[in-house]
Amino acid sequence: MEIISLDSQRREEFIDITAELRQLIHEQGWDRSVRSAILHLWCFHTTAGLTVNENADPDVKRDMLLALSVIVPEDLDYRHAEGNSTAHVKSSLVGTSLQLPLVQGELKLGRWQGVYFCEFDGPRKSRQVGVQLISSST
Amino acid sequence: MEIISLDSQRREEFIDITAELRQLIHEQGWDRSVRSAILHLWCFHTTAGLTVNENADPDVKRDMLLALSVIVPEDLDYRHAEGNSTAHVKSSLVGTSLQLPLVQGELKLGRWQGVYFCEFDGPRKSRQVGVQLISSST
Amino acid sequence: MEIISLDSQRREEFIDITAELRQLIHEQGWDRSVRSAILHLWCFHTTAGLTVNENADPDVKRDMLLALSVIVPEDLDYRHAEGNSTAHVKSSLVGTSLQLPLVQGELKLGRWQGVYFCEFDGPRKSRQVGVQLISSST
Repeated sequence: MEIISLDSQRREEFIDITAELRQLIHEQGWDRSVRSAILHLWCFHTTAGLTVNENADPDVKRDMLLALSVIVPEDLDYRHAEGNSTAHVKSSLVGTSLQLPLVQGELKLGRWQGVYFCEFDGPRKSRQVGVQLISSST
Repeated sequence: MEIISLDSQRREEFIDITAELRQLIHEQGWDRSVRSAILHLWCFHTTAGLTVNENADPDVKRDMLLALSVIVPEDLDYRHAEGNSTAHVKSSLVGTSLQLPLVQGELKLGRWQGVYFCEFDGPRKSRQVGVQLISSST
Repeated sequence: MEIISLDSQRREEFIDITAELRQLIHEQGWDRSVRSAILHLWCFHTTAGLTVNENADPDVKRDMLLALSVIVPEDLDYRHAEGNSTAHVKSSLVGTSLQLPLVQGELKLGRWQGVYFCEFDGPRKSRQVGVQLISSST
């Protein structure tokens, strides 16, 4: 398993990791050896997540964070002592596990798609995303 | 990677693709050759998604679209110029990546489960879903 | 495909299945034979789901159920005759498909992460979660 390590700068932030994934694919030689596979991405944190969405207009990630802040209200009767219950909820809504198609050695995303690490309880140092190549035997 | 192509008819719509998946499995011969695998489904769009839910009573998908329209409000201070920010949010809530179990050549779903392409910004032509067979080496 | 079977005790409940997964990995000998793989978990139900979140402080799962009950309102104009539409919506929000990293035979979760079966329409007997080992050929 390869690890992508990130520092987040704000409490809530979508960090585009698409370029780092493409670099990792090249460094590992998967672009030369893989016909059809998936990249399995794993977020090791319970107050962060992974998602895929538009990375052309930066307003999209801004609007997504805005909507999530309304969807998951801050003022409920939460009991978790760390005071970051909304971050836990948002993590489960977007998910911590993501699979991406790798075809003929290329990360095969749609035209507007980018891969985001979703920080919901930052800023934090050394957030980690695991990356595994799962290639088919057929 | 195989591609399922769809035209959506409405702004928001859940389109059942279970039968097309079963036909694809048969056409590719995966029903005769595969012991244990997953089908990896990929939605190439940032205003659509994939989910699994009941496909017996059509009111379930109608109720899900109703709930999502309340969960993700239309009247927030969105800035994305295309005016479809709620579609981007809904895409990330249901997800664009889906894995289905294939066991002894059969798509192994629960009794009431069907696979839906979720259109959140239609109607659109040529929406595309990628399908990869990832079979285990063991 | 291996099956984990569970009885839920309440209408809504997060049931930690991490220990059962680790036991299954040991019983199947995957801890001795697997270098890099994913465990694919499948929830066979449309009113339940699977998620990963903190399992140290039990208030986290309590707060998550509280937030989900506010996020998905009970009092909308639902039509599904069984009266459990909110459970269907919550199932699609957390998802029914989950992939976990297995590295050097070990379920490789973050320090605070546990795997939950999410009951949204219990209590029910014999809820089933399928588990497949998908190991890479490389």
